Amino acid sequence: MIATKYTLKQVIENTEPADPKWRLAARDHIEKLAIPPWSLGQLLTLGEQLSGIQRTIRPNVDRKMVITMAGDHGVVAEGVSACPQEVTPQMVENFVNGGAGINILAKAAGAEVIVVDMGIAVDLPELVKNGQLIDCKVDYGTKNFYHEPAMTRAQAVQALEAGINVASKVIEEQGINLLATGDMGIGNTTPSAAILAVMAEYPVSSVTGRGTGIDNAALIKKIKVIRESINRLQPDKNDPIDVLAKIGGFEIAGIAGVILGAAYHRVPVLVDGFISTAGALIAKGLCPQSLDYMIPAHQSEEPGHQLMWQNLGLHPLLNLNFRLGEGTGAAVAMHIVESSARIMCDMFTYEDAGVTKGAGTIESL
Amino acid sequence: MIATKYTLKQVIENTEPADPKWRLAARDHIEKLAIPPWSLGQLLTLGEQLSGIQRTIRPNVDRKMVITMAGDHGVVAEGVSACPQEVTPQMVENFVNGGAGINILAKAAGAEVIVVDMGIAVDLPELVKNGQLIDCKVDYGTKNFYHEPAMTRAQAVQALEAGINVASKVIEEQGINLLATGDMGIGNTTPSAAILAVMAEYPVSSVTGRGTGIDNAALIKKIKVIRESINRLQPDKNDPIDVLAKIGGFEIAGIAGVILGAAYHRVPVLVDGFISTAGALIAKGLCPQSLDYMIPAHQSEEPGHQLMWQNLGLHPLLNLNFRLGEGTGAAVAMHIVESSARIMCDMFTYEDAGVTKGAGTIESL
Repeated sequence: MIATKYTLKQVIENTEPADPKWRLAARDHIEKLAIPPWSLGQLLTLGEQLSGIQRTIRPNVDRKMVITMAGDHGVVAEGVSACPQEVTPQMVENFVNGGAGINILAKAAGAEVIVVDMGIAVDLPELVKNGQLIDCKVDYGTKNFYHEPAMTRAQAVQALEAGINVASKVIEEQGINLLATGDMGIGNTTPSAAILAVMAEYPVSSVTGRGTGIDNAALIKKIKVIRESINRLQPDKNDPIDVLAKIGGFEIAGIAGVILGAAYHRVPVLVDGFISTAGALIAKGLCPQSLDYMIPAHQSEEPGHQLMWQNLGLHPLLNLNFRLGEGTGAAVAMHIVESSARIMCDMFTYEDAGVTKGAGTIESL
Repeated sequence: MIATKYTLKQVIENTEPADPKWRLAARDHIEKLAIPPWSLGQLLTLGEQLSGIQRTIRPNVDRKMVITMAGDHGVVAEGVSACPQEVTPQMVENFVNGGAGINILAKAAGAEVIVVDMGIAVDLPELVKNGQLIDCKVDYGTKNFYHEPAMTRAQAVQALEAGINVASKVIEEQGINLLATGDMGIGNTTPSAAILAVMAEYPVSSVTGRGTGIDNAALIKKIKVIRESINRLQPDKNDPIDVLAKIGGFEIAGIAGVILGAAYHRVPVLVDGFISTAGALIAKGLCPQSLDYMIPAHQSEEPGHQLMWQNLGLHPLLNLNFRLGEGTGAAVAMHIVESSARIMCDMFTYEDAGVTKGAGTIESL
């Protein structure tokens, strides 16, 4: 277990927005670089964001980590997933053995991966004992929210605080300066779609997709389950803890907590796919200034994902047609974030390089 | 100078397409990976392509290099660029001193950068003497194609063969297994737009953009210059050497040569922005099977670039709103290519991982 050094209340009350003075200083520096104005596009926008987050025009993201949060979902009893629930612990074993997508892609990015049990339906005592799995288990999967709330309010807060404290620990003890979120949990596109429908007020049919690949009959069932659960439980979009408790998931709450912890400690956090971005909607709902610390990694194939980004007002860095989760899109995007930081630190200005400045302006574009 | 070990004719006649047997073997392997079907999207499509190129299901792209080709353009006398011509050698100095965008981004990607003088308007003898600049100078800039052909046919072939032999040398002597193209040349969006208009038969106004940031008056002039030059010189789209000779550029021909050299040696080559993709149009025109070896790095802000990708039938990996050239977009994309290769080599299958295969299929998506 992770000690609760930081409470949710404390983090929400003490998280500061990114610093606009450092954003301006970064912009000033960027305009001196020996390139046509703003010709490295999103790499420069990102450089400005990193500067505002880290309060420097020389941002550094050399200590990278993916936190992959795992949990199970009672709602799978309704037949909303193409995979059986046993796949959650099997994939966690795969993460620990280093053979999953997230392991390969994090290694390629020079990032560490840690895996957290937020609420897997079975125990994995060997992995916990060996230190390969962090035990923050809130319960053995959520309840089936088609019949009752997924969890209690106290469990929602416990899961959020677990995420906050996992992030805080790696930031404080290991000097991590770039985090990425990831998820594993069979059935978790269902609570994620439900969170999107509630938090952003979209019709359920427009936010619900096929997840790992369900057929038409299962898709119709999934929409029905989400729609009726929302109607019955009436989650309150102005109370994100209520939303988590009624229709959320333990790993989604954990991800929201990681984002809040990163923001509190002024560390940029790459938000991965559909499930991670559901966590981001919760984090922003609880603490609007946390949005400043989020970097939108990629646009997944799950149709509701672009609605999440639109709702957050963020434009994802990548669109490689992923629909896997685990943190895979965020891991690939780490290279772009690191490239941005290096541009800010190492690139020559017109003056450094002795290059004649052209007449081109952004205004003329 | 680089010795002409391989002639253009020899390369065109002996380049083989990628191997469909290895593509199929790769697809078979990918379908066994412990993920929902094809859920790493373009990373897997790329894995299939790399397998067909390298004739293995375990592709390897650990020796990466960007070849940045520089040249000047007589047509700048018509006022088609926001920058003065002196910026070409100044930026080459910047590349050599390690402070340009391409240096930072190649370093972040773990790639080497080499810079080639294909036709800069001045000599840079110190850089050549120190081995920092490869001297393949064909001439001191092209002629102004608003008044006469940019170069002779012999010069076009010389520039193509220089590119072929630079690529061949680094592949054979240094074991480079992933190449990327890059360009530097004030005014070079003008010949690139002209090549696109001719090779793909688009109206000049739809392929001509603002380059480094020209104003409306200069844009109108640029369109007029390109349109009238094409009308006067009548380049033959079925004879890409004629197109290069009449309205091309030395660095564009060099880039086309690099692509041809890579294809001949079965090495994947990341094609960068608008200028590099003009080179790709020429390479494909000369040797259609070279298309199999091209990896489309990114979609630039130059409006004609997406028309180039459409014409080649390629979907770029990145869209980060770059409009810089140098090879910068290709350098950032190298990480994606390397991530793809590592997925092919290191990821566990369902059998390796002991994970239960779900019911999801690509067909249901």
